[in-house]
Amino acid sequence: MFIRNCWYVAAWDHEITAGSLLARTLLGKSIVFYRESSGRVVALENRCCHRFAPLSRGRLEGDHLRCMYHGLLFDSQGKCIEIPGQETIGPQMKVSSYPVVERDHYVWIWLGDADKADASKIVNCHWLDDPSWIGKPAYMSFAGNYLLLVDNLLDFSHLSYVHENTLGGSSVIAATRQKIEQILGGIRITRYYSSISMPPFARGIAPFEDPVDRWHIYNWYVAGNVLVMDSGWAPAGTGALEGRRAQEAMQFTLVQALTPESENATHYFWLQPRNFKLDDKALTETLATAATVAFVEDREMIEAQQKVIKANPDNKMITITVDAALVRVRRMIDKALAVEAA
Amino acid sequence: MFIRNCWYVAAWDHEITAGSLLARTLLGKSIVFYRESSGRVVALENRCCHRFAPLSRGRLEGDHLRCMYHGLLFDSQGKCIEIPGQETIGPQMKVSSYPVVERDHYVWIWLGDADKADASKIVNCHWLDDPSWIGKPAYMSFAGNYLLLVDNLLDFSHLSYVHENTLGGSSVIAATRQKIEQILGGIRITRYYSSISMPPFARGIAPFEDPVDRWHIYNWYVAGNVLVMDSGWAPAGTGALEGRRAQEAMQFTLVQALTPESENATHYFWLQPRNFKLDDKALTETLATAATVAFVEDREMIEAQQKVIKANPDNKMITITVDAALVRVRRMIDKALAVEAA
Amino acid sequence: MFIRNCWYVAAWDHEITAGSLLARTLLGKSIVFYRESSGRVVALENRCCHRFAPLSRGRLEGDHLRCMYHGLLFDSQGKCIEIPGQETIGPQMKVSSYPVVERDHYVWIWLGDADKADASKIVNCHWLDDPSWIGKPAYMSFAGNYLLLVDNLLDFSHLSYVHENTLGGSSVIAATRQKIEQILGGIRITRYYSSISMPPFARGIAPFEDPVDRWHIYNWYVAGNVLVMDSGWAPAGTGALEGRRAQEAMQFTLVQALTPESENATHYFWLQPRNFKLDDKALTETLATAATVAFVEDREMIEAQQKVIKANPDNKMITITVDAALVRVRRMIDKALAVEAA
Repeated sequence: MFIRNCWYVAAWDHEITAGSLLARTLLGKSIVFYRESSGRVVALENRCCHRFAPLSRGRLEGDHLRCMYHGLLFDSQGKCIEIPGQETIGPQMKVSSYPVVERDHYVWIWLGDADKADASKIVNCHWLDDPSWIGKPAYMSFAGNYLLLVDNLLDFSHLSYVHENTLGGSSVIAATRQKIEQILGGIRITRYYSSISMPPFARGIAPFEDPVDRWHIYNWYVAGNVLVMDSGWAPAGTGALEGRRAQEAMQFTLVQALTPESENATHYFWLQPRNFKLDDKALTETLATAATVAFVEDREMIEAQQKVIKANPDNKMITITVDAALVRVRRMIDKALAVEAA
Repeated sequence: MFIRNCWYVAAWDHEITAGSLLARTLLGKSIVFYRESSGRVVALENRCCHRFAPLSRGRLEGDHLRCMYHGLLFDSQGKCIEIPGQETIGPQMKVSSYPVVERDHYVWIWLGDADKADASKIVNCHWLDDPSWIGKPAYMSFAGNYLLLVDNLLDFSHLSYVHENTLGGSSVIAATRQKIEQILGGIRITRYYSSISMPPFARGIAPFEDPVDRWHIYNWYVAGNVLVMDSGWAPAGTGALEGRRAQEAMQFTLVQALTPESENATHYFWLQPRNFKLDDKALTETLATAATVAFVEDREMIEAQQKVIKANPDNKMITITVDAALVRVRRMIDKALAVEAA
Repeated sequence: MFIRNCWYVAAWDHEITAGSLLARTLLGKSIVFYRESSGRVVALENRCCHRFAPLSRGRLEGDHLRCMYHGLLFDSQGKCIEIPGQETIGPQMKVSSYPVVERDHYVWIWLGDADKADASKIVNCHWLDDPSWIGKPAYMSFAGNYLLLVDNLLDFSHLSYVHENTLGGSSVIAATRQKIEQILGGIRITRYYSSISMPPFARGIAPFEDPVDRWHIYNWYVAGNVLVMDSGWAPAGTGALEGRRAQEAMQFTLVQALTPESENATHYFWLQPRNFKLDDKALTETLATAATVAFVEDREMIEAQQKVIKANPDNKMITITVDAALVRVRRMIDKALAVEAA
């Protein structure tokens, strides 16, 4: 069960290069992406209407895509405009096309009712394309239902355990109460930690020593499963807990989007840009690797969790205090699904 | 759903060697093949009637096959003739045996009602064993339903696209109308192409240059999914389109048989003999490799198609003009299935 | 369908080492094992009650086990004793714990009604831990239902065929009638073979030559699928058939236990100790390897059989004379299952 009427991240812009085809399954639908000569991204149903050959095995001819089984040619609206050996082409000869918006290096797709596709509803992710922030775009596939990833991102108590040696570094994180606020289309979570260790991955990178004050302040948008987070740390007592950022504070804006591939798999797109040492390319690589290592920790846990759930799908989880945000978001998702089903 | 009352190719004769066992699944049934000392091929159900051990793990003892789990011995009719530790053997102790005919290097099997097995109904494939034709026997397994292979072979428009750089070489093939005639047990397809390129694989082999006239004239037999095709090319204007074959014409008789392994897999047996340069062994290898390369192109497309269909089994394909022959054969198959079901 | 109210072998004692976690699926339940500081073995449900993370990915903290997703801590009774970020802990926060008894180097587990767990019902396997017998503990996993392994062990006619070149060596084994007696909780099988070959694996090891008299005398216990067998061989005519063991006789006590992993897989634990040349470590290795080679022969046959059965689950096997013991034990199992279902 997926919310259909919303924008999802389908790809990084650099994944769809001129002259090539990208096949990706989103919400259970196989889609083929390419660029018109103008650069505009096209998204078509990845299945020829004739004998169901995948169009991603086809050939791009200018702005059109030819099925390389029997040669049917489709335009970028999905309309069949040539059938070898046949003069006339009936209107039923077409494949679905989907609205696409390229913004901030993300390629967003709308898989719901096309007349509801409103690009103004795309979450603001300008940090992905802002010269005062630098990071490295990343992608990973999880063999787990997207809700397990949503849960993970809405409960940072797991930083103390899953990420003990990477993003965490202190059991105080798990013990800390968070503030949850309603925002338009989602929730806002605020977490401050006073005078603790910096994340292990930051040791040797930070220009200061422990203890530090840390913060995680993030918006979660139900539509598209998007997280935008202000996070970082500064020498303890330099004002971070009151919202002031010391000159030497290390600040990041993490932008993540989860797009269901199927009920059992999820696409995970992220960038974690920093606003310091913008020209230090080695640091960009180091931080990107550190994030990947941490998200692999999540993946291992979530894929293990998925297997346990699959083995006993009827069992009920038990909710605890730290689940407050994920319970609230799961309710918002259920409500959106109910609206779409009605 | 498979037609049962017909002869299918089970193997090449050389696959069943003296003293060894061949296990192969045909129409969903696992069968074990071996040769009696006389050379006659035996086909038995590949499952001991006792504890269901596969007899293909057994041991050939003269003309008999011993199950190597508990030692039951079966004769070549499938009758159990020895049970270790037991004096008498009840009539229920047997496995099925199947009629087999070895002809033209193909081993044909009958998996339907045994009393209907009539060897005179086996399709004439003498080119497989004719000194005036030379080729190399080949086999391939496709992870796709046999109907997808039937479709493929009944619509040569795909030569222009799937086989653009091997068997095709011209978009004229796809644009050409074919003649379809009814024949006993199948259809006959005639395709002539005037003054086009020869197939790419033939360049450097043919003793003449483009343009050429080409032809594909083939019979399709529904029983056993057998194709027998006269194909080739000659210098343009030397009479091929009127049925005359120039001295230097390159002619082939392709003989193909498709035997369902299961609903999701198909055995593919073929020989594509030529009637020129009969002693040129290097050419035999070159041409066999060229055919294999082309049929791997089919396999990739068909296996991709099978995956798309499996993901959305309820969708309906849309028929176009080039599908005329495959539509007709699918109707013949459906009719045969209905007769057997009744 | 598994008998629940009985003791099963879960592991060898050496598989559960201090400070580490062992995950094993038994009767379809995933269990995590560890040792308390006292050395006592703990068996807990391998699934956190919170979000279903596997506890085998957790961390042992003294005698307690912490889930490394969100940090819940469980005691060795399965009770949750700490939830990060939460003061009080409801009684529903727990995972199942299972009775465990460590005896004779086997770790036995009770997965049925805990109040019926009576350690006095554990089969006597003292040969596993007896200074007058020496062997090497072994474990193997079979991709087959446990009943197929039960069948195998209750019909030694297969020694002549499956193990022709290892444990068998003579078709007389299969042709020999066995004596079957009822014992408490199972059956006793007695098989004597007069003046035949010794098992092939023994050639070069035995201090005497063929012919030999051989014997297999074993108890089969339905509860836990345990086999305890007196087996061996001695020079022909030296009294073995009358129960006298010559000085040079080679004697073994095979102790085997089959524990279902799932409907499709089985854990197989065994030791085959001898009572001669107790200090010959090279001989211990040689004999252990020989047993493994033989049981791999069983595994190949049983896994092949399982595939055949899975392909056609509705077919009925046909019983023959040598099946007498396995038929009787299958009835005892069915009866025990019916009692538990009632």
